[in-house]
Amino acid sequence: MERPGRPVYEHEQMKNTLKFLLILLLQLSSAAFAADPLPSWNDGPAKQSIITFVEKVTTPGSPDFVPVPERIATFDNDGTLWCEQPLPVQLYFALDRVKALAPKHPEWKTQEPFASLLKGDLKTALAGGDHAVLDLMMATHTGMTTVEFAQVVNDWIATAKNPKTGILDTEMVYEPMLEVLAYLRANGFKTFIVSGGGIEFMRPWAEKVYGIPPEQVIGSSVKTRFERRDGKPVLIRLPELNFNDDRAGKPVAINQQIGRVPIMAFGNSDGDREMLEYTQGGSGVRFELLVLHDDAAREFAYGPATGLPNVKLGAFTQALYDHAKQNGWVVVSMKNDWKRTFATQK
Amino acid sequence: MERPGRPVYEHEQMKNTLKFLLILLLQLSSAAFAADPLPSWNDGPAKQSIITFVEKVTTPGSPDFVPVPERIATFDNDGTLWCEQPLPVQLYFALDRVKALAPKHPEWKTQEPFASLLKGDLKTALAGGDHAVLDLMMATHTGMTTVEFAQVVNDWIATAKNPKTGILDTEMVYEPMLEVLAYLRANGFKTFIVSGGGIEFMRPWAEKVYGIPPEQVIGSSVKTRFERRDGKPVLIRLPELNFNDDRAGKPVAINQQIGRVPIMAFGNSDGDREMLEYTQGGSGVRFELLVLHDDAAREFAYGPATGLPNVKLGAFTQALYDHAKQNGWVVVSMKNDWKRTFATQK
Repeated sequence: MERPGRPVYEHEQMKNTLKFLLILLLQLSSAAFAADPLPSWNDGPAKQSIITFVEKVTTPGSPDFVPVPERIATFDNDGTLWCEQPLPVQLYFALDRVKALAPKHPEWKTQEPFASLLKGDLKTALAGGDHAVLDLMMATHTGMTTVEFAQVVNDWIATAKNPKTGILDTEMVYEPMLEVLAYLRANGFKTFIVSGGGIEFMRPWAEKVYGIPPEQVIGSSVKTRFERRDGKPVLIRLPELNFNDDRAGKPVAINQQIGRVPIMAFGNSDGDREMLEYTQGGSGVRFELLVLHDDAAREFAYGPATGLPNVKLGAFTQALYDHAKQNGWVVVSMKNDWKRTFATQK
Repeated sequence: MERPGRPVYEHEQMKNTLKFLLILLLQLSSAAFAADPLPSWNDGPAKQSIITFVEKVTTPGSPDFVPVPERIATFDNDGTLWCEQPLPVQLYFALDRVKALAPKHPEWKTQEPFASLLKGDLKTALAGGDHAVLDLMMATHTGMTTVEFAQVVNDWIATAKNPKTGILDTEMVYEPMLEVLAYLRANGFKTFIVSGGGIEFMRPWAEKVYGIPPEQVIGSSVKTRFERRDGKPVLIRLPELNFNDDRAGKPVAINQQIGRVPIMAFGNSDGDREMLEYTQGGSGVRFELLVLHDDAAREFAYGPATGLPNVKLGAFTQALYDHAKQNGWVVVSMKNDWKRTFATQK
C-alpha cells in the first residue's frame, strides 16, 4: 500500500529516521562494550559462539543479517535464568500458600499432597508426581482475582530465600545469563521467557529482575473468567489448567503468543528440547544453548548428563546431551564456562 | 537488586541514556506533528479526546503520566480497523477455501453449511449461526502446518477484494485509525490487535498493513500440535477450537497474552464491550472508544444504534450505545468525525 506524502506516512518516515538514529546509538553503545559484553563468562567456545552469532545476525550486509523485528530470543526460566534447587522456587511458594491457607481447609489434614506438606514431609507429598503438583498448584494459585494473586506473589517474593543458601531467590539469578539478556536487547532482540512455571507467578517480578515485561513472559496458566464484582470488572483464577507450557507445549505457546520462530533459544533440561528443536527448524541461521548444572561448589550439580542423580522436576538427560552435541547446540558448563554464577560471588 | 558498577548495569545505564535520547527524539517528532497528528479527523470532541488523553499520559510531571512500558492500547480489527461489510473478510477467505478444497470433499455436496456455500447461497449457509461458522472455520483453516497456512493466507490476501467496492481488502482499512495507531506508537505506546478473528489469519499481513507485529496480534485460535515430519519440527493446525476471542474472552486473552490492563481500547460492537469495561476498570486514567458505522455514503451504515438492521456478525446495539454514553466512552460517528474513511477517498 503505497500512499506517499500522506501524513500517516510522514509519521512513518519520521519513525524510520528515529530508527536509524536509534540504531546509530545502539552501535555506539555496542562499540562501548565491544571490549567484553559478557564479562562473567570465561573465554572459550561457549562465550565466543554467542558473540559470533549476534555479530553475524546484526551486521548490515552480512548474508545472515536478521531484521530487528525478527530478532526473537526465548529463555526457559527455572535452571536457565535462576536456580531451581533444591526445588523450583514456585513449589516453595505453593508450600507457603498451603500453610497460609490451611486454617480454611481442615480437610487438608488427611488429604494428599497437603497432609504430608503440612507435616513438612516434602518427599511423600511430591511422590504423587505431576498429579500431586497439579493439585497443589490448583489449590494454592486459584480462587482469587488476577490482581489479588499478583499481590500475593509480590509480597512473597520480596522476602523468599533459597532454603540451602539463605540468599533471596531473586538474587539466585545467573549473572552470566543477565549479561546475555542485556547484550541481546542492546542488539535489537526482544527477549522472552518461555517457562513451564506459572505465567502469573513470573510476571510480577520478571521485569524488575530480568528486564522482561509481562507481555514477553510465557508460561503455564490456569483458566480465568471475566466477572463484574460490585460493578468492577475482574478476572477470576479458576482451578482448571489452561495450558502446560512444557516440552512439546513450548513451541505451541511460542506460536500462540509470539507468532514467529525464535532465532535463539536457551534452556537447561529435557523440557526445553522441543523449543530448541523448533528454533533450529526455522529458516536461516539459528542458535540453541543448554545450561549444564555441573558446578556443585558454586551452585548445584545434577542430572544424568553430569553423571549425577536427576532433579525432581526437569532433567538434563544423557539423550538430550547427545542430541545437543549431534545438532551443534551449545552446552554450557557452569563450572568451566562461567567466571561467576551469582552477582554475590566474586 | 542494586549492584552498582556491575557491567550488566552499565549496560542498563547506557539503555537509560538511550531511552532518554529516544524520548527526546520522539518529542521532537511529536512537536513536528503538533499541528495535526490526526489529519483525517474532523475537529470535534472525538478527535480532541484522543489528543487530550495522549498528551495527559505522556507529559512528564502530569498527575496522569503513564510510564512507557504501561502504554498499552488494544484495537478490535473487523469494523474498527478495516471494513467488515457485507461480511467480515475472513468469511470470504473461508468461502474461497471451500471452493478450493471441494474436489477433495465430495461429501460437502450434501453437507451444510458447505452445500449451500458451493451453490453460492450464503444466506442459507450462515443461517446455522455460530455453529455453521465454526464448522466452516475448522474445515478450511486446519489440517496443515502453521507455515503452510500462513502461505495460503498471504496468497489469498494479495488479491482479495471487497465484493461491493472492488477495492483490495487491505485498502479497506480506515485511514483515521491508521493515524491513531501511528500517533500512539510515536508516543511510546505498544499497539495490539484484540480480535474475534483468527490470530493466524491476521498475523501474515498485520505488520505490513497496520504496523503491528505478530506478537502484538491477539485473536481466536485453533489448537496446534508439535510434530516432527521428516525430522523437521512443525506445528499442525487441528480442527479444534483453542480460544474464542470475543466478548468476555477478550479480557481473558489480554491478561493471558499481555498481562497488563490496557490504558486505551478501541472497538465497534457488543463483542468489544468487555474489553472496554476491563480497560476502564484499571487504575488511573483510561480511554475507551467505539466506532459507529453511520456512513452509508462512504462506507456502510448498520447496527441498531444507527436505527438500521444488524450486521450478521457483531452488532452495535442500543444497549451498548447507552452504556458508552453513561460511562464516558467516546463514540465516533464515521460520518461526522472522519474527514475521509479510506486512503483512496479524497
